Amino acid sequence: MHNTIEKADGKLGVLIPGLGAVATTVIAGVEAVKKGLAQPVGSLTQMGNIRLGKRTENRFPKIKDFVPLTDLNNIVFGGWDVYSDNVFEAASHAKVLEPMLLHAVKAELEAIKPMKAVFDKTYVSNLDGQHVKEAATKWDLAKMAMDDIENFKEANDCARLVMVWCGSTEKYIEVSAVHETIESFEEGLKANNPAISPSMIYAYAALKLGVPFMNGAPNLTVDIPALIDLAKETNTPIGGKDFKTGQTLMKTILAPGLHARALGIKGWFSSNILGNRDGYVLDHPDNFKTKEVSKLSVLEDILQPDINPELYGELYHKVRINYYPPHGDNKESWDNIDIFGWLGYPMQIKINFLCRDSILAAPIVLDLALFADLSKRAGMSGIQEWLSFYFKSPQTAPGLRPEHDIFKQLIKLQNTLRHMMGEDLITHLGLDYYQDLVEVLS
Amino acid sequence: MHNTIEKADGKLGVLIPGLGAVATTVIAGVEAVKKGLAQPVGSLTQMGNIRLGKRTENRFPKIKDFVPLTDLNNIVFGGWDVYSDNVFEAASHAKVLEPMLLHAVKAELEAIKPMKAVFDKTYVSNLDGQHVKEAATKWDLAKMAMDDIENFKEANDCARLVMVWCGSTEKYIEVSAVHETIESFEEGLKANNPAISPSMIYAYAALKLGVPFMNGAPNLTVDIPALIDLAKETNTPIGGKDFKTGQTLMKTILAPGLHARALGIKGWFSSNILGNRDGYVLDHPDNFKTKEVSKLSVLEDILQPDINPELYGELYHKVRINYYPPHGDNKESWDNIDIFGWLGYPMQIKINFLCRDSILAAPIVLDLALFADLSKRAGMSGIQEWLSFYFKSPQTAPGLRPEHDIFKQLIKLQNTLRHMMGEDLITHLGLDYYQDLVEVLS
Amino acid sequence: MHNTIEKADGKLGVLIPGLGAVATTVIAGVEAVKKGLAQPVGSLTQMGNIRLGKRTENRFPKIKDFVPLTDLNNIVFGGWDVYSDNVFEAASHAKVLEPMLLHAVKAELEAIKPMKAVFDKTYVSNLDGQHVKEAATKWDLAKMAMDDIENFKEANDCARLVMVWCGSTEKYIEVSAVHETIESFEEGLKANNPAISPSMIYAYAALKLGVPFMNGAPNLTVDIPALIDLAKETNTPIGGKDFKTGQTLMKTILAPGLHARALGIKGWFSSNILGNRDGYVLDHPDNFKTKEVSKLSVLEDILQPDINPELYGELYHKVRINYYPPHGDNKESWDNIDIFGWLGYPMQIKINFLCRDSILAAPIVLDLALFADLSKRAGMSGIQEWLSFYFKSPQTAPGLRPEHDIFKQLIKLQNTLRHMMGEDLITHLGLDYYQDLVEVLS
Amino acid sequence: MHNTIEKADGKLGVLIPGLGAVATTVIAGVEAVKKGLAQPVGSLTQMGNIRLGKRTENRFPKIKDFVPLTDLNNIVFGGWDVYSDNVFEAASHAKVLEPMLLHAVKAELEAIKPMKAVFDKTYVSNLDGQHVKEAATKWDLAKMAMDDIENFKEANDCARLVMVWCGSTEKYIEVSAVHETIESFEEGLKANNPAISPSMIYAYAALKLGVPFMNGAPNLTVDIPALIDLAKETNTPIGGKDFKTGQTLMKTILAPGLHARALGIKGWFSSNILGNRDGYVLDHPDNFKTKEVSKLSVLEDILQPDINPELYGELYHKVRINYYPPHGDNKESWDNIDIFGWLGYPMQIKINFLCRDSILAAPIVLDLALFADLSKRAGMSGIQEWLSFYFKSPQTAPGLRPEHDIFKQLIKLQNTLRHMMGEDLITHLGLDYYQDLVEVLS
Ligand SMILES: NC(=O)c1ccc[n+]([C@@H]2O[C@H](COP(=O)([O-])OP(=O)(O)OC[C@H]3O[C@@H](n4cnc5c(N)ncnc54)[C@H](O)[C@@H]3O)[C@@H](O)[C@H]2O)c1
Ligand SMILES: NC(=O)c1ccc[n+]([C@@H]2O[C@H](COP(=O)([O-])OP(=O)(O)OC[C@H]3O[C@@H](n4cnc5c(N)ncnc54)[C@H](O)[C@@H]3O)[C@@H](O)[C@H]2O)c1
Ligand SMILES: NC(=O)c1ccc[n+]([C@@H]2O[C@H](COP(=O)([O-])OP(=O)(O)OC[C@H]3O[C@@H](n4cnc5c(N)ncnc54)[C@H](O)[C@@H]3O)[C@@H](O)[C@H]2O)c1
Ligand SMILES: NC(=O)c1ccc[n+]([C@@H]2O[C@H](COP(=O)([O-])OP(=O)(O)OC[C@H]3O[C@@H](n4cnc5c(N)ncnc54)[C@H](O)[C@@H]3O)[C@@H](O)[C@H]2O)c1
Ligand code: NA
Ligand code: NA
Repeated sequence: MHNTIEKADGKLGVLIPGLGAVATTVIAGVEAVKKGLAQPVGSLTQMGNIRLGKRTENRFPKIKDFVPLTDLNNIVFGGWDVYSDNVFEAASHAKVLEPMLLHAVKAELEAIKPMKAVFDKTYVSNLDGQHVKEAATKWDLAKMAMDDIENFKEANDCARLVMVWCGSTEKYIEVSAVHETIESFEEGLKANNPAISPSMIYAYAALKLGVPFMNGAPNLTVDIPALIDLAKETNTPIGGKDFKTGQTLMKTILAPGLHARALGIKGWFSSNILGNRDGYVLDHPDNFKTKEVSKLSVLEDILQPDINPELYGELYHKVRINYYPPHGDNKESWDNIDIFGWLGYPMQIKINFLCRDSILAAPIVLDLALFADLSKRAGMSGIQEWLSFYFKSPQTAPGLRPEHDIFKQLIKLQNTLRHMMGEDLITHLGLDYYQDLVEVLS
Repeated sequence: MHNTIEKADGKLGVLIPGLGAVATTVIAGVEAVKKGLAQPVGSLTQMGNIRLGKRTENRFPKIKDFVPLTDLNNIVFGGWDVYSDNVFEAASHAKVLEPMLLHAVKAELEAIKPMKAVFDKTYVSNLDGQHVKEAATKWDLAKMAMDDIENFKEANDCARLVMVWCGSTEKYIEVSAVHETIESFEEGLKANNPAISPSMIYAYAALKLGVPFMNGAPNLTVDIPALIDLAKETNTPIGGKDFKTGQTLMKTILAPGLHARALGIKGWFSSNILGNRDGYVLDHPDNFKTKEVSKLSVLEDILQPDINPELYGELYHKVRINYYPPHGDNKESWDNIDIFGWLGYPMQIKINFLCRDSILAAPIVLDLALFADLSKRAGMSGIQEWLSFYFKSPQTAPGLRPEHDIFKQLIKLQNTLRHMMGEDLITHLGLDYYQDLVEVLS
Repeated sequence: MHNTIEKADGKLGVLIPGLGAVATTVIAGVEAVKKGLAQPVGSLTQMGNIRLGKRTENRFPKIKDFVPLTDLNNIVFGGWDVYSDNVFEAASHAKVLEPMLLHAVKAELEAIKPMKAVFDKTYVSNLDGQHVKEAATKWDLAKMAMDDIENFKEANDCARLVMVWCGSTEKYIEVSAVHETIESFEEGLKANNPAISPSMIYAYAALKLGVPFMNGAPNLTVDIPALIDLAKETNTPIGGKDFKTGQTLMKTILAPGLHARALGIKGWFSSNILGNRDGYVLDHPDNFKTKEVSKLSVLEDILQPDINPELYGELYHKVRINYYPPHGDNKESWDNIDIFGWLGYPMQIKINFLCRDSILAAPIVLDLALFADLSKRAGMSGIQEWLSFYFKSPQTAPGLRPEHDIFKQLIKLQNTLRHMMGEDLITHLGLDYYQDLVEVLS
Repeated sequence: MHNTIEKADGKLGVLIPGLGAVATTVIAGVEAVKKGLAQPVGSLTQMGNIRLGKRTENRFPKIKDFVPLTDLNNIVFGGWDVYSDNVFEAASHAKVLEPMLLHAVKAELEAIKPMKAVFDKTYVSNLDGQHVKEAATKWDLAKMAMDDIENFKEANDCARLVMVWCGSTEKYIEVSAVHETIESFEEGLKANNPAISPSMIYAYAALKLGVPFMNGAPNLTVDIPALIDLAKETNTPIGGKDFKTGQTLMKTILAPGLHARALGIKGWFSSNILGNRDGYVLDHPDNFKTKEVSKLSVLEDILQPDINPELYGELYHKVRINYYPPHGDNKESWDNIDIFGWLGYPMQIKINFLCRDSILAAPIVLDLALFADLSKRAGMSGIQEWLSFYFKSPQTAPGLRPEHDIFKQLIKLQNTLRHMMGEDLITHLGLDYYQDLVEVLS
């Protein structure tokens, strides 16, 4: 199959709805990396390696040397926002990166000015930006977004495009009739159906044009039958939802470990404090609901209380997000985990993660952009389950339960890459191990 | 192969040098479980399940219903200690389990009286028990231990035996000439060579009689060529070193997770407070050295700084154990982890684990006893790498680096069980997944 | 004045509206202490001492040996609740004390059966007990409560009575016209005015009969002009509001310390998890509001942002209470404090207090009962500011700001006792210190 | 007395042995404050206020507006070090302050070049600087230091001088014969007595010249009879030992609070991680011993286990300092406190203080310099007990136990200032309070 993957020649346009903290951090970072000022830590595509062959072969190439990814020097960024600040201004307001670093890439960042947003305050009531498209119907807005995309491609001489949603979390919406088919969806666009949120309009525009779409927020967006069908129809990869960072990242690392040891869990309380614009948006109950659903789902899948009722049947799981301005983007989580062991004796684990929200999210944006583009060139379309590794609520084929265990997600991601390149799938227990066993047992 | 595994009929004698906190907790616990008073939480053999077949088959039997393990009702405990307290007294002093629970199994525990120990204060200077064998040479002591073993077997009508070292951590010793061959070792025994510690004498006695030996402490014991050879010669399974509990357990869960995401680590500071007899023994620098070596080794293997120098090349790793009587057996760890992400920005993780040392160790003793016995009946001898899951410094074949990542260890353990029973090895990415890929890619 | 303090002869009846976790813990504890089974730790009246005279005199009598307090053996408990469980049953449900301890005082606890409550679900919507008085007006309920009080006194042969509110936190109510005068209040009782909550009815009944009233919850209760006037009129001591325990206790210890050093504070985030009935009641926003107001008030008074605007002018203070059943009564708090020092450099303090709510509150109930009775016998009436030490929002004379600094509160309490007994007030810096100065300076 | 305080006219020279992290932070900070670039947070003399008169008078002047202190603009810094780096270089190496800030005061810092140190590796074995005076005897070294002092005074046109020791912690030394009298000490200097450390030589030089000496490290230095006598003889104020910052500051805030509430304490475990040069010096057991003694002393004085044996008689107190380079000057402490309450029920407090060592110490250096100078001008000589507020092990008159409770220390400091200025001493309970009482009681 690796023979059939299209080359990564020419420029890749990365289009981002929502040029806020995360987006500006990834853009400024890529520019700084290009200048050799910093390293893209946290990015598997840039810093990670992958084991090939048998244990004894000792082959660990960097992923970027193994699969044909777009070079960072060939990336061009663009995007939309409801505020008209250019990326330098927006990054400065976000206060994620130090002024010194931002100044080193000032010219590049100032050059990126947001296009007018497809936006509606109904979906994010704590925002009030005015840099917004006006049109009679959502259908018209979709057309305008498609025009933006095509203009950007031409103006920037791009060979290919991808889109990554880094906009605010929209209010909670459940899948309903209008989301069921491409037809019902298009009618909904024309009828201004309230169940179609701005993020869906961007996604529709992208997919119609065959542009891969990755969703970094917990809103539904491409996780509806209509857009999944559209992705298949236009041979376009999609993925979502909600970048897996901070507390949830920790949870999907730790829970598999406790489960591995058959340790019981009685309660898991997760508190967060953050003071950036994202925190302010999530301070509204409608938007928090969307995030809460996303954050609560992970434990059940990993612990399987139905199969282990004595260990996890009573688990009480609670997640809180508290808007706390003094911390700005330095989101901090505190978890209290009530576990029990031998004979039911209780123990406790407390985890205090002093993280930086956008610093953890930025490399995910980069990886998703590059891997989405790779998928497209490899002819893979529809839901990219192998990118579950990056998401809090991974989108899956209907009927399948999502895999949340980060270690299983990683093996899946790596083996997909190996498969693409015609290498043996590694199983930690494959033939070489079988050999060990045979020797031992014989 | 499962056709050839000997049945688990008759009684299994579990012989334990060191009837301290851990040993009495496992013994009292097994008795309580037999009476239906409590559950053996934390024991994979008793509470864990294993997935068989394809994802869609939904087969998750309990491990104890899948492989032929000795039933808890067929276990008989015995052991040695330098103090003459019976197990009820020793358990009461250890203050791990509540008086109420101990009283419920008082008769059973009082019946177990320690045999006189093979002991020498040189190796554990903070102990001063007098319930100790006397003899001219270590060779004689080994013979006396063999007599103990055989007498126990007969007196208790055991079909099979296993031995699990739960004695104190001995002082630091490095592998030297006397440990190289069976011959040099036996000469050493006769010459009272100081490089042969008491734990090695018990192990020699066990292996000579074909009794599997598992080492719960970080001292060398069976991790020397002479005893590895002897194990092969007598077709006996061996395993070690150092039960993986508490802080190190956490470390081998968390480090793979951070590594998965290509997050850098600059420092990892691990502090422990504990106030039990184990803590008192480890308060002596010679004995702490043995434990420190064991605890420090894990990160390097998981993070591979040679392959990821930008991420882990500078890692400063420090481990401290502080004797703190107010906490008794309620060992508590506090870890500070200095990580860095995108563009090198620093973040911190603090983990405070309020654990219970012996509660975490007890189910490991049980699992190791049952799996060692299973290995023996399955004809597997020598180092049991598939039991690495349970150890802080897993013993490996010479030249191989140990696997510390708990998730890889778990897959290895599970696939060994599947292999024993003639089931397909699961790879999370095996044929079924390949199928998925084919569908997606086609 | 100590000559005029009435003797503490005869029995003291301690009447408690609300026989829940706190009340049953204090009652069971006092019974256990009487039997010599445990110590009344945390009770200043029982365990604390007080320095008398000059530094060099070395006089530190126990407080109970210094002032004439009622002996524990002369205390009789009684109370009301909306559930009909006797105190043994209620204590068992509360799961604060171990079964073994409760059994040791079972007979005493079973003998205490709650009287029917003055209750109205409007004020505590998460409760639904049926053991409730019925009457046409609040005025009638007050009469019934007075009858209860008098019957109890006679039946138990009490020389004196005190009442301590340990009932649930009622919903938030602000002072309004009906609370202004005794007359308006009595009319309100007759007219079933909704601004008169059940706790006010108990308080009115107590004060009318000259029984001191202490309020352990944050609801207004006696903190209204009408009842303050009534207290003066009937020569009765009153005090409140809200027992100072856990997180707030910590805050009033720590904040004065940071202030002492002129360290700035930018943010203080306080989270709590608890799973008892109190937590369940506070899970309702109306009731949480009452508690929140009480918990938020403390920092402002201590830090005086008006006088120190550069240090405390921007302080962002947030308090959260999260209902989390796995922890039961083991309330746990986590505080993140963002401070800044020299040149504005930021630092952080994290405090994790694994406390036990009722264990901290129980000795306060005892002390308040004994000190309220002492005040009464000493002829002190109205608001007892010297008991501010025990309250989260100390009641003060109109116009005065409450003192929250626990160290100033303590000095006030101690000096009041010294004053009562005719001892010199100690000032840490009084004459003896002046003497030091004179020597140094001369 | 305020009439007799000499005016603060002319320049004050602040001489600092040890131009390391703390010293360069205070120097750079004062320069930045002078330029209006930052605020001297944490400095009571600059930012703190003091209440005067009755509660109702509402008088809270800044301390610097109340007592006649030297203006920051009149301070000149000088010092000695074993390394020849100027203050800009040393501050840059220390990595406490941001490069941007240091650059803003670069010229001022570069101008301050250390004089050659009185130094001997025997006392600080982890240091190896070469910028050191050479002479045959300690007596000669003392003379050379006196010359330095006088030269500095003249060269910088200083009206007055003070000295503050900010040098490394010297190894543990106990008071012995040579320290007893001025004569024995001077003989010791001539005989190179090993019990006379370099810090004592600086102190001797200062005191001979009537220059106040404050000791920021835990080494004995001026806490010996010979130098106390010399201080009296030359009318010179002295103070020490060991700046109270970080963990110990917290301890002297928290312990009085727990004691106030008669809560018992069973154990207090204090761990520290730091990676600066101070940490490296303290990594040597001899030097750690000096610090440990200083850090351990505080609890006993505050809790008085002799008077409260049931509450504090069993307290186990342990302090650890761990050298951990990744943290640099960002010292971090973690405390576990095992307390018990009502009926002996256990609770725990965990405190994680992410502090910055030199940021906390710098304002103390400034305050001590200014207050020592004030004392001198006010004619106060010998040990300044009223400055105990700033020290971990406050020096006291022989026979008196030191006061560690920070709240009592603060009252003492404030009342000394009030007394100097002829204001009423405030007692929180003085006449105005008596008045309250009278009203209440009448
Ligand atoms: N660690 C993380 O930072 C993290 C993790 C998971 C998910 N997320 C999600 O990523 C998204 C971005 O996070 P952030 O911290 O950058 O937030 P942010 O508030 O800084 O940025 C979001 C930006 O989106 C813009 N926006 C909102 N709606 C828009 C629209 N319809 N069209 C165009 N622009 C729009 C806003 O004006 C804002 O500038 C959020 O949804 C957040 O929940 C972030
Ligand atoms: N979580 C855990 O508890 C844990 C984890 C890893 C390893 N370990 C190791 O397990 C061992 C047991 O731990 P523990 O907490 O029960 O300690 P313990 O001190 O309570 O018990 C050890 C017992 O061994 C006895 N002993 C020492 N030398 C002996 C000898 N030569 N022969 C017979 N008895 C001997 C001692 O008298 C003591 O009773 C220790 O080596 C410990 O380091 C424990
Ligand atoms: N540390 C602490 O426990 C603490 C600290 C400060 C304040 N408080 C306050 O003390 C009170 C008691 O706390 P708790 O933990 O015992 O709560 P709890 O819920 O266990 O007990 C309260 C009891 O009051 C009863 N009650 C409610 N309204 C009543 C009424 N009108 N008449 C009679 N009984 C009534 C309830 O049925 C319940 O049994 C609460 O208001 C709480 O907020 C507790
Ligand atoms: N929070 C704090 O930083 C804090 C708190 C309490 C006490 N202290 C004490 O303050 C002192 C300074 O702390 P630091 O962090 O600046 O340490 P540092 O190591 O950065 O600075 C000490 C300096 O003293 C110099 N020195 C050592 N001996 C000397 C001598 N005989 N003459 C001249 N210079 C000498 C060293 O070369 C070094 O530059 C240490 O003793 C420390 O224990 C610091
Ligand atoms: Na919270
Ligand atoms: Na430590």
